[in-house]
Amino acid sequence: MKIVIYNEHNEHHTQGDTLKSYPNGIHGALEELFKANNHEVKVFTHKNINNLTKEDLDDCDVMVWWGHMMHWHVEDSIVDLVCDSVLKGMGFIALHSSHLAKPFKKLMGTSCTLKWREIGEKERVWVVDPQHEIAKGLNEYFEIPHEEMYGEHFDIPTPDELVFIGWFAGGEVFRSGCCYKRGYGKVFYFQPGHETNPVYYQKDVQQVLLNAVNWAKPNVKKEKLDCPNITKPLENI
Amino acid sequence: MKIVIYNEHNEHHTQGDTLKSYPNGIHGALEELFKANNHEVKVFTHKNINNLTKEDLDDCDVMVWWGHMMHWHVEDSIVDLVCDSVLKGMGFIALHSSHLAKPFKKLMGTSCTLKWREIGEKERVWVVDPQHEIAKGLNEYFEIPHEEMYGEHFDIPTPDELVFIGWFAGGEVFRSGCCYKRGYGKVFYFQPGHETNPVYYQKDVQQVLLNAVNWAKPNVKKEKLDCPNITKPLENI
Amino acid sequence: MKIVIYNEHNEHHTQGDTLKSYPNGIHGALEELFKANNHEVKVFTHKNINNLTKEDLDDCDVMVWWGHMMHWHVEDSIVDLVCDSVLKGMGFIALHSSHLAKPFKKLMGTSCTLKWREIGEKERVWVVDPQHEIAKGLNEYFEIPHEEMYGEHFDIPTPDELVFIGWFAGGEVFRSGCCYKRGYGKVFYFQPGHETNPVYYQKDVQQVLLNAVNWAKPNVKKEKLDCPNITKPLENI
Amino acid sequence: MKIVIYNEHNEHHTQGDTLKSYPNGIHGALEELFKANNHEVKVFTHKNINNLTKEDLDDCDVMVWWGHMMHWHVEDSIVDLVCDSVLKGMGFIALHSSHLAKPFKKLMGTSCTLKWREIGEKERVWVVDPQHEIAKGLNEYFEIPHEEMYGEHFDIPTPDELVFIGWFAGGEVFRSGCCYKRGYGKVFYFQPGHETNPVYYQKDVQQVLLNAVNWAKPNVKKEKLDCPNITKPLENI
Repeated sequence: MKIVIYNEHNEHHTQGDTLKSYPNGIHGALEELFKANNHEVKVFTHKNINNLTKEDLDDCDVMVWWGHMMHWHVEDSIVDLVCDSVLKGMGFIALHSSHLAKPFKKLMGTSCTLKWREIGEKERVWVVDPQHEIAKGLNEYFEIPHEEMYGEHFDIPTPDELVFIGWFAGGEVFRSGCCYKRGYGKVFYFQPGHETNPVYYQKDVQQVLLNAVNWAKPNVKKEKLDCPNITKPLENI
Repeated sequence: MKIVIYNEHNEHHTQGDTLKSYPNGIHGALEELFKANNHEVKVFTHKNINNLTKEDLDDCDVMVWWGHMMHWHVEDSIVDLVCDSVLKGMGFIALHSSHLAKPFKKLMGTSCTLKWREIGEKERVWVVDPQHEIAKGLNEYFEIPHEEMYGEHFDIPTPDELVFIGWFAGGEVFRSGCCYKRGYGKVFYFQPGHETNPVYYQKDVQQVLLNAVNWAKPNVKKEKLDCPNITKPLENI
Repeated sequence: MKIVIYNEHNEHHTQGDTLKSYPNGIHGALEELFKANNHEVKVFTHKNINNLTKEDLDDCDVMVWWGHMMHWHVEDSIVDLVCDSVLKGMGFIALHSSHLAKPFKKLMGTSCTLKWREIGEKERVWVVDPQHEIAKGLNEYFEIPHEEMYGEHFDIPTPDELVFIGWFAGGEVFRSGCCYKRGYGKVFYFQPGHETNPVYYQKDVQQVLLNAVNWAKPNVKKEKLDCPNITKPLENI
Repeated sequence: MKIVIYNEHNEHHTQGDTLKSYPNGIHGALEELFKANNHEVKVFTHKNINNLTKEDLDDCDVMVWWGHMMHWHVEDSIVDLVCDSVLKGMGFIALHSSHLAKPFKKLMGTSCTLKWREIGEKERVWVVDPQHEIAKGLNEYFEIPHEEMYGEHFDIPTPDELVFIGWFAGGEVFRSGCCYKRGYGKVFYFQPGHETNPVYYQKDVQQVLLNAVNWAKPNVKKEKLDCPNITKPLENI
């Protein structure tokens, strides 16, 4: 499978806890994971995301997106490119703080707002759709020792499929794994992955990521989306 | 209930078959219907839609939208205003060719493309969710003697509720009545209503429109949508 | 509105903590609530549930069901009667341990199994669909000081609408408010309400119950459900 | 994959148009198709369906069911066996008149009633979810030259995914391809396949059947479904 990763990787990510958690960046951790599972990977960060081309995405099965403080930095033309590719069949995985990433918001049509608290509390992620492809190989829950709390109400459209619900020690719950169809493409939002903890190095989280790209890969890609005029009826009337 | 109607009412609508079908414009027909049912109505056309204000919508329960060839004319700031109001609770009814209206597309996140054919064929609209509030008082189907064909594939997100499926004499089907939740607001897409036939004067279609605004009126309105930082956990941890 | 309540009210309910929590039985608390809101109420317990008649239900808008250890006691003919009435339009509210009540299981088609723990821990019930009629008037969550834990995986069909998610102090989550359409009827499962605590006397829980019966009341009732042979086509073919 | 086929194959099926359409029975046509695609197949008819064992189904990935006039003949214990197997992970494909088959009705919880007309009219089956695995390789529609009409209202729970909508020459529409999750298993209802026409020999219909069993095969199988008592909380409280 061909995967394109975008990781914002802003200046805060090359120091402190994020550097400790992800010495090669979040993209580095994701790239390593996908390559180890025989996927081809192309990586973008905030430095070159605005150079992303239609060719990059035509050749891509699934795009994985992690952004946070620089959502504004991604140009609208790039957002349109990504969303058009999704509608034509490309899978799209939005991670953690990408709930506010421009392409995710555009695909959802809602504000995608939520509550948050950053005290590194424990999260327990429960599987509520155990037959789902994205839950394959998981136990009934997995724990994240230290995670940023994301809480309801999460302003998203009703998920086509809800796979995970997160329990937070501080008292909140969250719809942590949400599946959508948009055009010919599939979209998965996955809440875990605050940058200051090495969440994407956890085995069970990696299982989710591998399952998710597999689930999101296109069954079919569509060349263009338009409104054809069918001048002749199919039946005599 | 307070209803705001937008009808594009472009220059083609003041002549020929459209004038014959709607001597007072489509907005005139809708206004008359809603007023006769004790709703307050405010009307906009392409001439003043770009003067629409936040106050107009704060005071509005449901907006009803009919647009066609001048979707481009509605400024993006107005589109944002409408969509924000929906997310905060205002109902939104998109009629017929408004499948490509900017606010509807923005709320859906898809291309909203479809097939079409304009030969005035018969449509039979079937109720597939007879317990739905929007189907109240209807028989199992109603007929539209002459309608523009809209056919699948209709590129929309899976409806939260599918109320109607259209059968067209020429051989196509269409998901003709689709319900969505977006934020605190409800959205209903209703396919019938090509401008050259007086569809909105049909009794059963009027029943649908009255049911739809009733269904779409807000249970609650939200002041603002943001991402609050909940610094203190609800539980001792 | 006309409401029929079934409360199992077995011998354990007339002593100890249940008696203390509900001096007049759970049915007494529910009856009082609904009557205070101008609904007509008829009550059944395990002593006379098998005398329930078609007439009782033809005349009923919404049935509210609380059962636990005597699900087996309800005769299959009564279960069929209840389920048929739901399919013909009657609303059905299944409370707490009624997840295993025969009519609820029959309407769901799944095992409706779940996890449980009875240590009287705290539950916080989060609203995840704040625009829903059943969430009207509620804050973003309400707390139940002492509740039996019900945990995922809850083996139910994907809810048509998910209104509440429960957070439990002991570490679990639960889909605590689930809406379904079955035939012409609406079904709501609501998890809170263990018999040893006076949960149904809480103001916010009472709000949910009142909202729920209001939501579940029929828009239309159907006389019979059959497979008519339409010998003549609607169109000339 | 291991597939178990049930075809009622009553006495009417061994003569007249059914014999002409299916010289080896509907099960013969299905068996041939699945075997040609390297699946293992076991066949049951009304003569031995009541001998079906737990072992037969434990060893089965997907069961394909075609029944019509002898639904009553299948014993309730067999129905329970089939439904339990679905809840534990086995896929289940209900074909055509199996909308009233006992296992399908039990899994749905509704009456599954519909309209019908048997004049051999044309059906055109439209794909409304073109990204779905069951629509893989299909054009935007396929035609069935002569089919029994099945019309709305079809009394089923809202499908988790709606893949096909049928257009009938006589004027009706039908939700002809409906996906459900039930427990760990997947259920697909497919409307085409009246016995007097060789529908299951059509290439596009065969494509649907092959896609459907592939979609319905279990990701995981569960040993038992029960309500475990989790005596110890996961967290200190």
